[in-house]
Amino acid sequence: MIGIFDSGVGGMTVAHAVEQLLPDYSLAYYGDIARTPYGPKSPKTIINYSIRNTEFLLDKGAELIIIACNSASSVATETLRKRFDVPIIEVITPAANCAIAKSTNGRIGVIGTRATVKSGIYHKTITTKKPDFEVYQEACPLLVPLVEEGWLNKRETKMILRRYLHPLKNKQIDTLVLGCTHYPLLQGLIQARIGKKVRLIDSSTETALYVKDFLNKNPTIVSKQKRVTHRYYASDKTETAMKVAERIFSRPMELIVS
Amino acid sequence: MIGIFDSGVGGMTVAHAVEQLLPDYSLAYYGDIARTPYGPKSPKTIINYSIRNTEFLLDKGAELIIIACNSASSVATETLRKRFDVPIIEVITPAANCAIAKSTNGRIGVIGTRATVKSGIYHKTITTKKPDFEVYQEACPLLVPLVEEGWLNKRETKMILRRYLHPLKNKQIDTLVLGCTHYPLLQGLIQARIGKKVRLIDSSTETALYVKDFLNKNPTIVSKQKRVTHRYYASDKTETAMKVAERIFSRPMELIVS
Repeated sequence: MIGIFDSGVGGMTVAHAVEQLLPDYSLAYYGDIARTPYGPKSPKTIINYSIRNTEFLLDKGAELIIIACNSASSVATETLRKRFDVPIIEVITPAANCAIAKSTNGRIGVIGTRATVKSGIYHKTITTKKPDFEVYQEACPLLVPLVEEGWLNKRETKMILRRYLHPLKNKQIDTLVLGCTHYPLLQGLIQARIGKKVRLIDSSTETALYVKDFLNKNPTIVSKQKRVTHRYYASDKTETAMKVAERIFSRPMELIVS
Repeated sequence: MIGIFDSGVGGMTVAHAVEQLLPDYSLAYYGDIARTPYGPKSPKTIINYSIRNTEFLLDKGAELIIIACNSASSVATETLRKRFDVPIIEVITPAANCAIAKSTNGRIGVIGTRATVKSGIYHKTITTKKPDFEVYQEACPLLVPLVEEGWLNKRETKMILRRYLHPLKNKQIDTLVLGCTHYPLLQGLIQARIGKKVRLIDSSTETALYVKDFLNKNPTIVSKQKRVTHRYYASDKTETAMKVAERIFSRPMELIVS
């Protein structure tokens, strides 16, 4: 079974991609809605929550963990890898690899939560592989609440996006990493504001592709079951979360509060 | 010692008012920054956190608890009163009483988080005392993240406020309760948008006045100490929280992570 966790419902964009790309595997998702959002919190707090989320999923039978949250991936990956024996896959490396492959001018933009941007993880991951690349980051802390409110096409959301993206507009980037699993829900608005020549990298899709490749190379890590199940657990359940979840999956969702 | 808790730093508007109105009492504040915000979460989760926060403050020596959070006051007061022996003071009654006293046309508006509005507590509290009063509520879930980002005078904040307040503009209210301890930081913007004829009720100040009155009538409940201390504890510490805290107190703040 594949285990996936996130601070809330944003990581469901990863789970949705995993369901579609890896239909032969069972999946357990854990959304920590009771403590959402992680983005504005300190690394220590995010690490503590990530350990607890991983333990929950292992208890459900997970044989591989996907950290479907850029904030948690940024600060907690190392701790989780030291602490747990199963493979821990984070969302930064797949998105960074894709950005490196797609950029032709070596100028990459990254938008994310404050925790992700402050960690500098995208800068580090990209420039370790490509020392001559330039990476420009912008923290966009209000995008998560706007997405969670379902304000996906409101004038205020467009204005706030314009304000956040403005510093990146002068950097001649040709690639922009959506470094938060909530942001794919704003993909159209972001594309319109950053310009259609800039290629957007969706960390959710890239991570699902990365896991698919990983399981092709390591076919015994996760067992295939005759009857595939997709279970979605959460530490709290709210109407807003359900609405966002159903928007991501385009189907009624059942969320098990645990 | 007076114990005060909130989901984060918003309740510091209450603590600040208590410091000023009750200078002879020691105070311990607990901000649950690691789990903030409470407003979008379920009653069950908010109640669990409120129990834990109260236990923390009692452990520090609190002899009276102020729930300096409208969301927690709305859903957790009854449970806390059943469970703990000390007086539990919430922010709804003081604000509702003040609104009743100040309104001349009996038409009162209330803005708050989704948890507060959904609980219907202001409606219930006001109409229990004044059955002929009309209470109009609007949930304003994005105001807390905007305040916590320090976007106190941005164009987007003004637009979002206009959108939230619009339904109340046609109700001929003469009084508007700021039913969230974050909102006093937006008082000027709210007044400008709702119109200067509408009187704003700040639940933070009203609660501090209520506690002062309570302690005058019950002088032995909270012991006075020779050396008054004001200690601010939190479950997490972030730069943004520190900035909002210092804006509320207009002084450098020390936050003890506990």
